[in-house]
Amino acid sequence: MRTVDLIEKKRDGGQLTQREIDWLITGYTNDQIPDYQMSAFMMAVYFQDMTDEEITAMTLAMANSGEVIDLSSINGIKVDKHSTGGVGDTTTLILAPLVASVGVPVAKMSGRGLGYTGGTLDKLEAIPGFKIEVPEEEFIRLVNENQVAVIGQSGNLAPADKKLYALRDVTATVNSIPLIASSIMSKKIAAGADAIVLDVTTGDGAFMKNPEDARRLAKTMVRIGKLANRQTMAVISDMSQPLGEAIGNSLEVVEAIETLQGNGPADLVEMCYVLGSQMVVLAKKADTIEQARQMLEESLRSGKAFDKFKEMIASQGGDVSYIEQPEKLLTAQHEIPLVAEVNGVVTKLVANEIGIAAMMLGAGRKTKEDAIDYAVGLKLHKKIGDSVAAGEAILTIYSNTEDVAEVTALLKENIAIGEVGVEPPLIHEMIIE
Amino acid sequence: MRTVDLIEKKRDGGQLTQREIDWLITGYTNDQIPDYQMSAFMMAVYFQDMTDEEITAMTLAMANSGEVIDLSSINGIKVDKHSTGGVGDTTTLILAPLVASVGVPVAKMSGRGLGYTGGTLDKLEAIPGFKIEVPEEEFIRLVNENQVAVIGQSGNLAPADKKLYALRDVTATVNSIPLIASSIMSKKIAAGADAIVLDVTTGDGAFMKNPEDARRLAKTMVRIGKLANRQTMAVISDMSQPLGEAIGNSLEVVEAIETLQGNGPADLVEMCYVLGSQMVVLAKKADTIEQARQMLEESLRSGKAFDKFKEMIASQGGDVSYIEQPEKLLTAQHEIPLVAEVNGVVTKLVANEIGIAAMMLGAGRKTKEDAIDYAVGLKLHKKIGDSVAAGEAILTIYSNTEDVAEVTALLKENIAIGEVGVEPPLIHEMIIE
Repeated sequence: MRTVDLIEKKRDGGQLTQREIDWLITGYTNDQIPDYQMSAFMMAVYFQDMTDEEITAMTLAMANSGEVIDLSSINGIKVDKHSTGGVGDTTTLILAPLVASVGVPVAKMSGRGLGYTGGTLDKLEAIPGFKIEVPEEEFIRLVNENQVAVIGQSGNLAPADKKLYALRDVTATVNSIPLIASSIMSKKIAAGADAIVLDVTTGDGAFMKNPEDARRLAKTMVRIGKLANRQTMAVISDMSQPLGEAIGNSLEVVEAIETLQGNGPADLVEMCYVLGSQMVVLAKKADTIEQARQMLEESLRSGKAFDKFKEMIASQGGDVSYIEQPEKLLTAQHEIPLVAEVNGVVTKLVANEIGIAAMMLGAGRKTKEDAIDYAVGLKLHKKIGDSVAAGEAILTIYSNTEDVAEVTALLKENIAIGEVGVEPPLIHEMIIE
Repeated sequence: MRTVDLIEKKRDGGQLTQREIDWLITGYTNDQIPDYQMSAFMMAVYFQDMTDEEITAMTLAMANSGEVIDLSSINGIKVDKHSTGGVGDTTTLILAPLVASVGVPVAKMSGRGLGYTGGTLDKLEAIPGFKIEVPEEEFIRLVNENQVAVIGQSGNLAPADKKLYALRDVTATVNSIPLIASSIMSKKIAAGADAIVLDVTTGDGAFMKNPEDARRLAKTMVRIGKLANRQTMAVISDMSQPLGEAIGNSLEVVEAIETLQGNGPADLVEMCYVLGSQMVVLAKKADTIEQARQMLEESLRSGKAFDKFKEMIASQGGDVSYIEQPEKLLTAQHEIPLVAEVNGVVTKLVANEIGIAAMMLGAGRKTKEDAIDYAVGLKLHKKIGDSVAAGEAILTIYSNTEDVAEVTALLKENIAIGEVGVEPPLIHEMIIE
């Protein structure tokens, strides 16, 4: 087999066999196929697409390129949840203990944030003492004991994906549905899940800017999940404005605590019920979505879910006093309101730009090497469709520097007050094939 | 400027500016842009094509990436001729002295053969003593004295093209009109010509297998030649069967001598007159093609062209006794006829496969490192449309090994005798914009 022939085959619209794709991915992972051939292949894929069979073969080859976590010693159906990224997306912090509290085992590996997108690991590390580096055996023991553990992704999980992603990033081949789908699914499969709930976000704050692309990506991932023998479904959710009210690591932990105590923002609560119900059904802990939702609502109302959260934090070394007194997490030196200049209705809250404003405060990373300030961020008091009076605070800036002129300017550019603000739908579509 | 942004621009069908293309080519030549970005860019060009302005900018950037030969100290309009490659294509050996003999200065840099395609340098080196490595000052002195010199391409001519071609070869991006056009034209421009006659071959023995692709390539090169201020025209010629009768280095030198003595095969002679007349007109040594052709016919008839050939060989160190007694060149140990098994008409003589048969005898190189046997090759006695009787020789194999079974088998597969053989047209089209 010659790499140049496989590039040519794809360039000319051909379908590669499983053997050919295995050969490519294995060769690339082992440094036998050079970057310059792989980038040409990726660009050919960008133009010629891939069939579901090809994407599945690629996903499995990437999943098998490194360590594959064996979760078989955990009882029950392990359901993973993955979001394609958002702003103020605190769902994992809430969902993990929530679904675990009704008996679904949650063995979750999460990632860090980059750019305007937040990451679950960063949020968890805002809790003093919390450990995200946990050896595999302890991870499995924790899930068997508590039904839940959220840890960092192992360094050797899908190394082919890590190498390919770095290459795609500098060769303008990131934005390709088959390549995005195989990248996400390879990590989920290597992480050992039996079933997968995908939250495919769409809008300004998402990777997929329009619902059509999000739908194509979601459908592709659901199909390849099934071809790879993983029960998979996807929710296409809106990310044109941030989810919930908090953006920033400690602020989002506080929001997760409030939500688990029954005082969460309506959109975030609803999102957790929608995704959680699907997870409960896939784990066969309920027969219907309605039944699953009732179980989750009951667990939240009774305090069981919040207890599970505290248990999860404690068992991974986190200081539970911060969960019981969340105000201890709010240590930013300055709380600066951004006030409305006119009366009206919020018509625009551009998610990615608001995410960038939070990043500029120190809540996120511009490059992988940047440090994070857990205390800083934004808290929205108004969302699209809400009325606001001149002089009233639209949001509060939590900052450790007094000069927030640049952040304020960016926020003002991306928030509008007008006459009619139409609240975007929370969920665009459910993809259950 | 970031390379990834330029890849993305081309990927999305955008047109790059001259500055952007200069930046890319300069950066790549200087190893500042890595192969993996350039190969992704090339694949994007493969799919999205380039405008004439982009191809011209790329051609000039590549031409200027290394040494640019200054021929201004040679009097007159220097006309170069380039063929996109063929089998048995002896035209340069004949054309160079022929047009020089009517006063057109010919300062020609030629290349070597690879695969089924022969190269002028290899043919010239079949003449004992002939030097193809000549310093630039001597090259210019030779042309000023004799009106003609044919030498090897300087090592530092269009290094960007050399580097890009090697990359394209292993990333399935060779077969792209803008990339082929800029590769050819960059070398012609760096070689210092004022005007260029292109012989774009088409058919089994050519790079462009069908006339439509050949036409697109020819038109593109003629347009960018003009945009780069080089008078340029193209002849689209047929290469479905070999040109002339000889294939192999010494055999082609003998054929060139015979042609310059007035005894050449009709198709090769006609081809030389067609290309030569264009060169004479571009050099402003004649007002019309008809007048130019008369000058060339007269020079050939009178022996002036053959004298010029001997002068050219002698002045580059070649032993002229081999030109005067060409039989001295024919040193192959075995001359083996391939005879027809039935009566009929030759209907098929597949050029590239016949070129490969000659290569297998040792006349050509499979890889750049292979050595060549000048003496071996094939001499066709019949061409498409010719009648042949059972037992009559279709061609003679000149070999230095007795066992030619494999070569014979390949030839038999690619030569057919039937009832009706239609001689292909020699010239498909002339592109003079």
